Amino acid sequence: MASPPAKNENLRRTGPLKAGHYCGVMGAFGIPNAGDFIFNGLYSLQHRGQESAGIAISDGEKIQSLKGLGLLSEAIAPEDVDKLRGKIGIGHVRYSTTGTKRVQNIQPLVIEYSRGIVAIGHNGNLTNAQKLRNAFEARGSIFQTSTDSEIIVHLLADPEHIENKDPLASALEHVEGAYSAVLMDARNLYAFRDPYGWRPLSIGKLGDGYVVASETCAFDLLGARFVRDVRPGEIVRFSSEGVESSQFAEPQKHKRAQCIFEHVYFARPDSILFGETVHEVRVRLGERLALDAPAEADAVISVPHSGDPAALGFSRRSGLPLEQGFISNKYVGRTFITPTQKGRCERVELKLNVVREVVEGKRLVVVDDSIVRGTTCRGRLDMLRQMGAKELHMRVSAPPVRNPCFFGIDFPTREELIAAHRSDEEIRKFLGVDTLAYQSTEGLLAAVNGAHDEYCLACFTGDYPIAISDCMDKNAFENRCRV
Amino acid sequence: MASPPAKNENLRRTGPLKAGHYCGVMGAFGIPNAGDFIFNGLYSLQHRGQESAGIAISDGEKIQSLKGLGLLSEAIAPEDVDKLRGKIGIGHVRYSTTGTKRVQNIQPLVIEYSRGIVAIGHNGNLTNAQKLRNAFEARGSIFQTSTDSEIIVHLLADPEHIENKDPLASALEHVEGAYSAVLMDARNLYAFRDPYGWRPLSIGKLGDGYVVASETCAFDLLGARFVRDVRPGEIVRFSSEGVESSQFAEPQKHKRAQCIFEHVYFARPDSILFGETVHEVRVRLGERLALDAPAEADAVISVPHSGDPAALGFSRRSGLPLEQGFISNKYVGRTFITPTQKGRCERVELKLNVVREVVEGKRLVVVDDSIVRGTTCRGRLDMLRQMGAKELHMRVSAPPVRNPCFFGIDFPTREELIAAHRSDEEIRKFLGVDTLAYQSTEGLLAAVNGAHDEYCLACFTGDYPIAISDCMDKNAFENRCRV
Amino acid sequence: MASPPAKNENLRRTGPLKAGHYCGVMGAFGIPNAGDFIFNGLYSLQHRGQESAGIAISDGEKIQSLKGLGLLSEAIAPEDVDKLRGKIGIGHVRYSTTGTKRVQNIQPLVIEYSRGIVAIGHNGNLTNAQKLRNAFEARGSIFQTSTDSEIIVHLLADPEHIENKDPLASALEHVEGAYSAVLMDARNLYAFRDPYGWRPLSIGKLGDGYVVASETCAFDLLGARFVRDVRPGEIVRFSSEGVESSQFAEPQKHKRAQCIFEHVYFARPDSILFGETVHEVRVRLGERLALDAPAEADAVISVPHSGDPAALGFSRRSGLPLEQGFISNKYVGRTFITPTQKGRCERVELKLNVVREVVEGKRLVVVDDSIVRGTTCRGRLDMLRQMGAKELHMRVSAPPVRNPCFFGIDFPTREELIAAHRSDEEIRKFLGVDTLAYQSTEGLLAAVNGAHDEYCLACFTGDYPIAISDCMDKNAFENRCRV
Amino acid sequence: MASPPAKNENLRRTGPLKAGHYCGVMGAFGIPNAGDFIFNGLYSLQHRGQESAGIAISDGEKIQSLKGLGLLSEAIAPEDVDKLRGKIGIGHVRYSTTGTKRVQNIQPLVIEYSRGIVAIGHNGNLTNAQKLRNAFEARGSIFQTSTDSEIIVHLLADPEHIENKDPLASALEHVEGAYSAVLMDARNLYAFRDPYGWRPLSIGKLGDGYVVASETCAFDLLGARFVRDVRPGEIVRFSSEGVESSQFAEPQKHKRAQCIFEHVYFARPDSILFGETVHEVRVRLGERLALDAPAEADAVISVPHSGDPAALGFSRRSGLPLEQGFISNKYVGRTFITPTQKGRCERVELKLNVVREVVEGKRLVVVDDSIVRGTTCRGRLDMLRQMGAKELHMRVSAPPVRNPCFFGIDFPTREELIAAHRSDEEIRKFLGVDTLAYQSTEGLLAAVNGAHDEYCLACFTGDYPIAISDCMDKNAFENRCRV
Repeated sequence: MASPPAKNENLRRTGPLKAGHYCGVMGAFGIPNAGDFIFNGLYSLQHRGQESAGIAISDGEKIQSLKGLGLLSEAIAPEDVDKLRGKIGIGHVRYSTTGTKRVQNIQPLVIEYSRGIVAIGHNGNLTNAQKLRNAFEARGSIFQTSTDSEIIVHLLADPEHIENKDPLASALEHVEGAYSAVLMDARNLYAFRDPYGWRPLSIGKLGDGYVVASETCAFDLLGARFVRDVRPGEIVRFSSEGVESSQFAEPQKHKRAQCIFEHVYFARPDSILFGETVHEVRVRLGERLALDAPAEADAVISVPHSGDPAALGFSRRSGLPLEQGFISNKYVGRTFITPTQKGRCERVELKLNVVREVVEGKRLVVVDDSIVRGTTCRGRLDMLRQMGAKELHMRVSAPPVRNPCFFGIDFPTREELIAAHRSDEEIRKFLGVDTLAYQSTEGLLAAVNGAHDEYCLACFTGDYPIAISDCMDKNAFENRCRV
Repeated sequence: MASPPAKNENLRRTGPLKAGHYCGVMGAFGIPNAGDFIFNGLYSLQHRGQESAGIAISDGEKIQSLKGLGLLSEAIAPEDVDKLRGKIGIGHVRYSTTGTKRVQNIQPLVIEYSRGIVAIGHNGNLTNAQKLRNAFEARGSIFQTSTDSEIIVHLLADPEHIENKDPLASALEHVEGAYSAVLMDARNLYAFRDPYGWRPLSIGKLGDGYVVASETCAFDLLGARFVRDVRPGEIVRFSSEGVESSQFAEPQKHKRAQCIFEHVYFARPDSILFGETVHEVRVRLGERLALDAPAEADAVISVPHSGDPAALGFSRRSGLPLEQGFISNKYVGRTFITPTQKGRCERVELKLNVVREVVEGKRLVVVDDSIVRGTTCRGRLDMLRQMGAKELHMRVSAPPVRNPCFFGIDFPTREELIAAHRSDEEIRKFLGVDTLAYQSTEGLLAAVNGAHDEYCLACFTGDYPIAISDCMDKNAFENRCRV
Repeated sequence: MASPPAKNENLRRTGPLKAGHYCGVMGAFGIPNAGDFIFNGLYSLQHRGQESAGIAISDGEKIQSLKGLGLLSEAIAPEDVDKLRGKIGIGHVRYSTTGTKRVQNIQPLVIEYSRGIVAIGHNGNLTNAQKLRNAFEARGSIFQTSTDSEIIVHLLADPEHIENKDPLASALEHVEGAYSAVLMDARNLYAFRDPYGWRPLSIGKLGDGYVVASETCAFDLLGARFVRDVRPGEIVRFSSEGVESSQFAEPQKHKRAQCIFEHVYFARPDSILFGETVHEVRVRLGERLALDAPAEADAVISVPHSGDPAALGFSRRSGLPLEQGFISNKYVGRTFITPTQKGRCERVELKLNVVREVVEGKRLVVVDDSIVRGTTCRGRLDMLRQMGAKELHMRVSAPPVRNPCFFGIDFPTREELIAAHRSDEEIRKFLGVDTLAYQSTEGLLAAVNGAHDEYCLACFTGDYPIAISDCMDKNAFENRCRV
Repeated sequence: MASPPAKNENLRRTGPLKAGHYCGVMGAFGIPNAGDFIFNGLYSLQHRGQESAGIAISDGEKIQSLKGLGLLSEAIAPEDVDKLRGKIGIGHVRYSTTGTKRVQNIQPLVIEYSRGIVAIGHNGNLTNAQKLRNAFEARGSIFQTSTDSEIIVHLLADPEHIENKDPLASALEHVEGAYSAVLMDARNLYAFRDPYGWRPLSIGKLGDGYVVASETCAFDLLGARFVRDVRPGEIVRFSSEGVESSQFAEPQKHKRAQCIFEHVYFARPDSILFGETVHEVRVRLGERLALDAPAEADAVISVPHSGDPAALGFSRRSGLPLEQGFISNKYVGRTFITPTQKGRCERVELKLNVVREVVEGKRLVVVDDSIVRGTTCRGRLDMLRQMGAKELHMRVSAPPVRNPCFFGIDFPTREELIAAHRSDEEIRKFLGVDTLAYQSTEGLLAAVNGAHDEYCLACFTGDYPIAISDCMDKNAFENRCRV
């Protein structure tokens, strides 16, 4: 008898569920040529994701979408955007975390269900995704992507929620973890954020319309005015009836858990994030580091461009002159391949070059924002030494990254994190520097004028704001807890 | 209050449900480097679909897929195929019926459900697709494509069927319409065909393994040996336990409804289709036409290459010499664009050229396989007249196409079908020929050695083998009955 | 002392001089949007060259050009053609004879000299190219391409000729070998042909303007009317003063040497070549073959599409029914690559497929236009045998190719030519056929209604119309005589 | 009578002669896999030219080349470089000065002449190019490119020079203007520089071999060691006999004329240019500006990244804090196109974004390296004002550009140069800044530790080191003096 796999067959799946982490989202309501608007705005968010890009636009009746793999400029042709008509839309850029680039996973997902058609774009990571998915599959549901966003739409379409007064709020009550998302149907735009507020999401105003973006730098580019952030636990609905806000989770029940790593590394310096300009936070991180971990040196140099603002702050507070020790080659891009290329190391050397005269015979403070694996950093420090640097004092504007993130930042595995299993002194020797100092968590919180109950510092401290439902296993951290 | 669309909002969807019609499918079981095999085999099926192509391969544990828009050579890179490892696989090519090329619709669909992962590739058109979809949506299911195949997997995953001894058979009992499909999980390949057998699906043997293809021409290319067709209403399962056949629908309950248009136009002449070599059928169609509708003429010419075999048959039976009146430019392809291009007409003229000496001053029988809109045909006949043809006697190897197909052939709308609202005499005048004759339905059936209860001739006769569930409307035909 | 290579250093050059052979040329004068016109016309000549394509257009003051590697559709973007303004222009397509595709060699060459700017496009092969080039180099001239065309312009610019009443005529007197060329300056178009007339070149009329093309099939496509051929030894100048003809070489001094291989294989069947429709010549070749080399068989099949007209003629004269034994896959194109591809053999098999029912158990006459290396042909005959052909009678519509061509057809080396060193019986065994017959030279000349002193049959007979200046070496044939 | 253009016809040419200005050149001798080496090295020189790239490699017998339009990564495929075998080679990148991208102009030019084959790559601009070309044309020479390099090879091939002991030296004696070039034959590499030394050219050592590059930053990348500059008027020959130097022009006869604009803007900051590290020169320019033109302000910001080093110097000397007022979007590249793009203005705004908190309410010193047209600069200053800057003090690290360059820098026409016809006060008003100050020429020379007779400052002063042969016309400057 022909028959599908028996119940107890335990076949491996296509791969672990992939979070929607390291993404950027955009939304527009009431904006003429919303497609152009979103396309341009996604350029400002490109640093949040380079694997794929997508746009979905509604003309008030139907939703059309454009999607593709790669950078925005590769994924979507401007002449195709020109053909999209409508004043409502969402957009998405997605980070490349693996070599597997599946076209099915490109967001926005455009999905039909009993109430019509919706499109969704999502930044974050649901921590109970696998549990929810198992439950849906047990009821007969099928899944075509490995994204969290698909689960949110399954919940939305569930008869249990759909009869509710506010189906989206009802659906989100079942979701755990980090999500800052935009969702649209043919006539409405929704922006919502999980009750802890891990990922940013801001609202701007442009003419008579509204825009939503992961970062405010998109507003500047487009001439929009920043209004406010979407609040943790809030759904904002933009419709022909105006803007309505509802709180699906009481804020007092949750302490906030804003991702401090956005400020340290991920967000663009010109964005206003969780109420602070990122650039200013980073300068303050450098200033604090100069106070807490001074160095006797001739000059301060930055690892471009991630360390630039902190180096500025370090120089300013320490009184040591700022210098430009590295030059970056803007033509050695993402697509750089050389005939003899053997991997990432070679690429780093092609991307950066040392200014010998700045470095030779000098005692240098070298400032960067973070050390993850340590190998790239060591390669760059080697270049300085080969060019004759006399002393190297590494200063890192964040504390050591020791723990995985379950809320949207894709760190390497615990084994690969240099600080997970090594002391500062071991790391110093590995890097081959004369002194090494990290930021303290106190310094970090001081720079954002924040407190432990407003920010998530779990990657530094291991102190996770919530229990991770999908990870009961004691080896969870090692397995990256993605089932 | 923020809320999704109210229940009574009647928003238009992304578009009508698209059938999986005009497609080609491939399957492989126990074939080393199944990816290469399927990739090469799809070249033989490229005439069945040029919009997109996809391959899914299992290494026995997990399924990997490659997909893309366009011709096989554009959609999938051979170096990517090289990386696929596994002995089980399926492949799919899809026809372009509209300008909208959605990446979501590219088959095979790869879907996870409670029993693991499956991939499906489908050729045909379900006539109760919308009804089934509505029912699923009412229960909370979501849809990401506009393909029939997604519905089949929803059925398969449904708890109602999954507990069944044969879930696939149980699922297919709910499906109406045309489908010839391949489905795989990580360890098994399934090939199945609807109880009427509209679309072809054949099994071949290659070494220790098995292959499945929409047309047998794929077997020849690959060195496989044709074994037999998948029977209407049959599921064939290929597994490590061997080949198992089960009949999910009793053949006696259904008369057959094999698509005669496959023989007339769609299939490749070197395929053995429903037991007959297509080329031979087409030659017989021309022979019969010569008997039924002779013409006093100097020569017979074909419209290349669709009319070639029938022209051969007409010449052979009539005794009129065959001539080559048109030369086709093989470099004017699908991607042909000229600076001054104004549409389809210009392209036709660039694609074909007349051999003046063959045509000038001659009385010609012009043979083609079918006339759909009539405009292309008229353009070509005009070219002959401009080159000095004295008389033109149009002979068409099939009857006039007057009715839409709901089972997988994508004719234009009834308005556009020249024969739907015009008499033969009106068409003759429109084409500007001296005489015009079509094949009779008797001639058609004679050529396939068939009977009315073995073939579907609905596009010619309007006599549909089954009622069309999705089309209760009296304007169904005009609306093409796609909801 | 730093110094360039000493005089007696004998460094090897970039490679042998490449003839302009296997090319197609176009010209236009007084044609609005000449760029569009030439672009479209080159599509009709694409069979004469697929390595590169180029267009040069004059607006009466300056010349602009577009060039690229590959097929016309790859080499030149239609939107760039749109930007070319002017009523005078030339175009060129070039055959790929080697893997080395040098951008410098793409024609038309656009060259400045003392009289201004000229562009030239050339089909043919100068037999004293190396001698002329050596002489120029000795005088200090430099060469940037490996094309014959560059030499013609060197001659034109030479003060010896430039002071002449007709510099072009004066220049051409020094050139030996085959050339059918178009040349333009900012205000004039010139078309000229060597005194023997190896390669074709025809003039057409379109509205108030004139067109020139290697083959008349380009005129049909463009709606132009064929007027006459450019005569051997004639320069036709198209200018604002009208059309002027001059004879730079007296026709009576030269017997003609029209390339019969154009009729056999190279030209398109719908062209009128040297006064005969190519298709008709090919049908007559088949008819003659049927008379001279009949076979007892069940059917005649063609190797598509080169053998189509001769098979038609053979069937017609022999009374044996024509059949379609091979189906060609139009999607397996020039860019076809499969993951497992091992070379040309595999490609042949993918490109053609056998119709089993036509072949199985049959005694077949197989007709093709020529056998060059024999390997492709053998592969195809093998396919027929594997499909069950009972007897195979190979009939070739031209005599055996035994000698290299120095006038523009790029045969493989003498070693590779199967007929150069083998008897007919040896070839028959190599091909594995029951009988093999070639056309006689008498049959060949009869088909073109020609005589030995009007056609060049050197590739068949070894009887070269002129001595080959560049080839004094006794191993000339083996070395392909290209220095 | 058919005849080419009469002598007195004065037809316009394809366009003005294009200088080889704004280019980068590479050379390699005795380097295994020289192709890889040059390919990688060209990445470091990409800032000197983005229109086209080319590589020519000799295996000791023959020269092979790869060329293409666009950035290195677009022009040349790494897998093609892999196939080049040889230890001698040259490479070239070329700047885009016009929309016309002619494949003929891509360097290196590979040319055959009486002594064999040579390849040449050139950076600079010959001021007697047209005069030389006219003379050659009068003698019957032909030209296929609009590059200076072609003229140098014509001279080299000239019998007058070829019989000389040192043909290259003999040829160069006839050339006027700026050139830093590499030339190779199958066995030797030559590097040479005009007697004034406008453009840089340096020699490095790598293992047993030698490398040559326009800038030393290429050496760092490749692990080569900087040895010395090619001297003005020197030919360096690299051969199997070793390295030989010869002086074709006596240095004492010429004052030097090193291009100061290379230091100001064009060269990469990590290069050692004319004996000074570019970065250091630029920092000193900022320091001097702070002394000569101080401003009462809250902070110093740079226009990234051209103004970075000078802003560093200004901040250091003035004591005003350095701030990061602009953020540049690294994903908005050269290929950036938006659906609504209307020109360069929009692109500027997308490329740079202002950090509001840094700017709002502040009195800012804004430092850039130069102002050419003024429009881009004004756009950026507008952005600062819109973000709330209180005062803007523009400081430019070079003097006003008032004159065209005939030696290799492609400024816009005199009309477009904002400083050519306007006073500083007029420019200040145009830019809308509170104060504006330029560097003095004294400050400029002080920064390079140089004197007027070592540097060319003509673009600032109009004091050209040599008379411009090609420009006798009184409107020469306006016509850009390119005949």
